[in-house]
Amino acid sequence: MTPATSLFTPVEADLRILADNLKQLVENRHPKLFAAAEYLFGTGGKRIRPAIVLLISRATMLEQDITPRHRRLAEITEMIHTASLVHDDVVDESDMRRGVPTVHSLFGNRIAILAGDFLFAQSSWYLANLDNLEVVKLLSEVIMDLATGEIQQGMNRFHINVSIEDYLEKSYYKTASLIANSSKAAALLSEVSQETADHLYNYGRHFGIAFQIVDDILDFTSTTDTLGKPAGSDLKSGNLTAPVLFALEEKPYLEALIERQFAQQGDLEQALALVQDSQGIQRARELAAYHTKLASEHLCDLSPSESHQALINIANYTLGRLY
Amino acid sequence: MTPATSLFTPVEADLRILADNLKQLVENRHPKLFAAAEYLFGTGGKRIRPAIVLLISRATMLEQDITPRHRRLAEITEMIHTASLVHDDVVDESDMRRGVPTVHSLFGNRIAILAGDFLFAQSSWYLANLDNLEVVKLLSEVIMDLATGEIQQGMNRFHINVSIEDYLEKSYYKTASLIANSSKAAALLSEVSQETADHLYNYGRHFGIAFQIVDDILDFTSTTDTLGKPAGSDLKSGNLTAPVLFALEEKPYLEALIERQFAQQGDLEQALALVQDSQGIQRARELAAYHTKLASEHLCDLSPSESHQALINIANYTLGRLY
Repeated sequence: MTPATSLFTPVEADLRILADNLKQLVENRHPKLFAAAEYLFGTGGKRIRPAIVLLISRATMLEQDITPRHRRLAEITEMIHTASLVHDDVVDESDMRRGVPTVHSLFGNRIAILAGDFLFAQSSWYLANLDNLEVVKLLSEVIMDLATGEIQQGMNRFHINVSIEDYLEKSYYKTASLIANSSKAAALLSEVSQETADHLYNYGRHFGIAFQIVDDILDFTSTTDTLGKPAGSDLKSGNLTAPVLFALEEKPYLEALIERQFAQQGDLEQALALVQDSQGIQRARELAAYHTKLASEHLCDLSPSESHQALINIANYTLGRLY
Repeated sequence: MTPATSLFTPVEADLRILADNLKQLVENRHPKLFAAAEYLFGTGGKRIRPAIVLLISRATMLEQDITPRHRRLAEITEMIHTASLVHDDVVDESDMRRGVPTVHSLFGNRIAILAGDFLFAQSSWYLANLDNLEVVKLLSEVIMDLATGEIQQGMNRFHINVSIEDYLEKSYYKTASLIANSSKAAALLSEVSQETADHLYNYGRHFGIAFQIVDDILDFTSTTDTLGKPAGSDLKSGNLTAPVLFALEEKPYLEALIERQFAQQGDLEQALALVQDSQGIQRARELAAYHTKLASEHLCDLSPSESHQALINIANYTLGRLY
């Protein structure tokens, strides 16, 4: 068991049920898609999104067991996340993710687009059948945010005028919206007060932003081996994340390298060195720590429980990956 | 005004409002997608799907005006249809549609996938905000059916054992489901009885199937110029439609040509000639006429009105395109 998954102890059994269900939900209809789906749901995903949904479900239901709807919501969350990954990999032409080839590089663009469409469609359908209009609205907002975030990221490639606020907005759309809205939805299924639901939305929002910042820092500080994709690949593709945006304030030459899209030999290496030599990574760490702290503070409404503690530990563990 | 659009007289003004709204809904956020969307929503679409939604809305509201929700439903219907076209064109690698280049051939795969995702996402969101759970369920079923239909079509390419039943099922998923479920949804927004709503679902289902059969016949009987895409392109790509499936019962040599995927020179021309020489096209026409008749019969619950008459005329006009 990796340190990440041992954090999920209170919902470990739930996550095993989820893994089986996810495969079965796709299996029923489409053998070829099933191969892609099994591959998708089988490979290395940390399942952090459904784990948070399940932990919030347990932390808000306390003595009572969680309901089939809580479980279904966790599955929908993972389906939406997976669908967006598959399409993002086609759009970004990424060949590797989590150390394994991406769906489109293995099965082709056709299957990748169809598999993504099918997962989005299936999640909309399961969502409607949760019979809770507010939950439908929250999660359909997420699907819209994911598309918006991917479009913004695409349009801002190599734009040195992107601000930290733009970056945080894009990170909300691409990462935090799903965690925030599914956290709130889980709370609503437990029939908590609107105020508690909003706190849990904000837990998810701050946690999601911290999670994205940490991921973006690791792209600079980790090895290709640990990342499961080439290190420095965000910068290379013009996706300017927190460490670079901070570094740009200190290192004007970075602008020139980015603006010519690393066209000359050694440009990318020089840019990576400039980021390392700046306060960029340190400042990004502080930003992640700030959002992690805010996330934990929004758990204030929850009674003490193993699941409550796990939600705090996950936020801290995420930050701890940097050290 | 083409004969097709003059059929829409009772909802002509409504369709103009719809065209403006569709462009505005996308415009707000994404300039680049807006270019693709304007192109999409601007080019030659017959808007038959939103026209039917609006006609059913007017035919069920009668003296009262239709509501903003009826209009929104018509927009959602066109958005879902457009999203699925964009992704289908990428998946099928089609370069032309309705006589103009497809989005992916003009703007690239990236933009086409993003634009499709964004339109699906936006339609889910508007759908949730109609605040009617039954309507959400009906339309999310459609999104699932569209994905299922495209997958089935892809998997059955060049399969000579496809039955007419398989073909009708696929045609339901790809074409009739959207018309049937949006017809029913429009009726539900007018608060008709469940029985009337079910009749209108069946109007849409039979009309949609007839519409697809007619489209598939025209691929054999029209010129490239009229179609706006190469004639015979269904057969060429292995998409076996009603005329071929019927022809296969008479012309065993067609099997061999299809099974070797028209690999030898002259194979496709020979196959097209075999279909022409068979009863395939005639039998497909009869099948379309049968479904057109059934469609009109399901309008039985509607009081006489201009919109009611237009719904009959559209079904007959569709069939009339063959003569």
